[in-house]
Amino acid sequence: MPQKIFFEQEALDDFSKYLKDGNFSRVFFLVDENTHEHCLIPLLQELAEIGETEILEVESGEESKSVEVLVQLWMALSELNADRHTLLVNLGGGVISDLGGFLAGTYLRGISFVNFPTTILSQVDASVGGKTGINLEHLKNRIGLFLEPDRVYVINSFLNTLPLEEKRSGYAEMLKHGLITDKEYWVGLCALDITKELPSHEMIKRSIEIKTSVVEKDFRESGLRKILNFGHTLGHALETVSHEEGEPLLHGEAIALGMIGELMLSTHFAGLSEKSAQQAIKKISSFFEDVEVVGDTDRLFEVVRQDKKNHEGHILMTLLNEIGTAQPDVEVSETAVRDVLKQLQAW
Amino acid sequence: MPQKIFFEQEALDDFSKYLKDGNFSRVFFLVDENTHEHCLIPLLQELAEIGETEILEVESGEESKSVEVLVQLWMALSELNADRHTLLVNLGGGVISDLGGFLAGTYLRGISFVNFPTTILSQVDASVGGKTGINLEHLKNRIGLFLEPDRVYVINSFLNTLPLEEKRSGYAEMLKHGLITDKEYWVGLCALDITKELPSHEMIKRSIEIKTSVVEKDFRESGLRKILNFGHTLGHALETVSHEEGEPLLHGEAIALGMIGELMLSTHFAGLSEKSAQQAIKKISSFFEDVEVVGDTDRLFEVVRQDKKNHEGHILMTLLNEIGTAQPDVEVSETAVRDVLKQLQAW
Repeated sequence: MPQKIFFEQEALDDFSKYLKDGNFSRVFFLVDENTHEHCLIPLLQELAEIGETEILEVESGEESKSVEVLVQLWMALSELNADRHTLLVNLGGGVISDLGGFLAGTYLRGISFVNFPTTILSQVDASVGGKTGINLEHLKNRIGLFLEPDRVYVINSFLNTLPLEEKRSGYAEMLKHGLITDKEYWVGLCALDITKELPSHEMIKRSIEIKTSVVEKDFRESGLRKILNFGHTLGHALETVSHEEGEPLLHGEAIALGMIGELMLSTHFAGLSEKSAQQAIKKISSFFEDVEVVGDTDRLFEVVRQDKKNHEGHILMTLLNEIGTAQPDVEVSETAVRDVLKQLQAW
Repeated sequence: MPQKIFFEQEALDDFSKYLKDGNFSRVFFLVDENTHEHCLIPLLQELAEIGETEILEVESGEESKSVEVLVQLWMALSELNADRHTLLVNLGGGVISDLGGFLAGTYLRGISFVNFPTTILSQVDASVGGKTGINLEHLKNRIGLFLEPDRVYVINSFLNTLPLEEKRSGYAEMLKHGLITDKEYWVGLCALDITKELPSHEMIKRSIEIKTSVVEKDFRESGLRKILNFGHTLGHALETVSHEEGEPLLHGEAIALGMIGELMLSTHFAGLSEKSAQQAIKKISSFFEDVEVVGDTDRLFEVVRQDKKNHEGHILMTLLNEIGTAQPDVEVSETAVRDVLKQLQAW
């Protein structure tokens, strides 16, 4: 697990020290209208001696990961005379850290930046892999850099005002981490009621650890990384078609249903016991029962068929041998996939 | 000196091998209208087995280092389905390698790229420091990355169609390298008639070596890098004012006159002998006697006064103690600077 992630009071203390030691000429905050109100204002109250700051605000939502917004931010930094010794603080979810990381990496050939992730999903993803970037029209993350922030600061109170849909969307990714690698962690997560409480720091740390370890091992052992795709083959199809139909699912909602479908397939193709599958399905569905699948089976199947993880016409998925053990590249039959898609539509 | 610079036939051989070993899905060439005609066509004739190629052409000149052109190139790569295994070949001078390096570094979080520099200046600068970037409106290199090309290929025949002004502009930078660090190299360069012949590979290599060594040493010994600014305090003022007056000098032309002025100042402030100064001035002026200084002394002096190398109101320059030995941060008097500017205007 990267050493530069700090939680709560330790995060505030380290950030104060980082600001002091860094001797930055200026501090810019990149926020959206939500994190401006709910996160930046309380944060600035905690940091008495921050000195001269500037605020760059973009609209919340994926649309801000655009060339137009990027160029506006480049211009804003220039007009506000940001120099090489400027610090950029990204305060928000994945859109803010993707956009802000790329902004910091390209302005004056790179200025320092840190991330305060303000969603569960971005906390879990924030410091692993260093992906930054913007969309080029409809092409997601077409332009970007691999670039790690100097620090990642996790402060749970920023999650308090997050809508429940966003909370459970991040929780779905955490459930996935347990299912693919760690039964004990899965059991612990199951005891959490995400509608009433937030994941503990230990849980956030454990998810970051799992993702880091899988990504790092993949440098030697090519293919392991594919286990992170559990739930994503069906989930991606559900997400894509929901957007086509104008009733978009959140990523985590689609992944939750995708995991339910792939748990069903795991009993047929990867030896997962019926009992384990049913227990896990019951748990996931208890939080996501109101999510509706739109689009017809043929269109959903078409997207599954086009998945880039497939090989030579065979449909390949990551499935579970048991809870906590994933197997990549399991071939599944067209009939079984269509059958599961129908079950999800009737959910 | 970086190991990845190859010359002439060795360059062609290595590039063929690189293409084969790299197993690239596609090869894109970034060119301007001049290098398209004079460099790309002959190069493609040499490379029989290059496979599928695409050509991206931008207009020659600094105006192509813009956000608009960058976005057009991002779109072009996307529309032509460039994937992660695409190679970009930058075939041109500094504008092409600056723009193309940034393009390659940001498309799909980075694709491979190599440079074929086609001016003397870009050959000498091409592989040192890895600066890439674009201008943001009038702000030069405001957006960019530090990023080294995989390979640099120097092929002298590409210089044949270069206008003499461009050749001597690059030659001025080479003369500077000799003057600041290596008397023997300076003497060798003086024996070259740039109006009739091209620098040898040994000379190009020597200039790259000098620049690399100065830049690398600067990581430890802060400030050494300033010696590369010899000729640039006055030269930059001459260049800036020439643009304001609508009679722009090439960078190397301005630097040549700047070196003449700073050689004069070196006799007063850095102990350079009159004889050495006069010999060097005579040599430089033999190639640059037709260059005219525009603008009045007050405006030229104002730009010198604003130079960012100055400190607390003192005018500081890199001057020569003797031919081959430079001293950074020498304080010079306003009277002497004005006097030298007047001499250059009467040139």
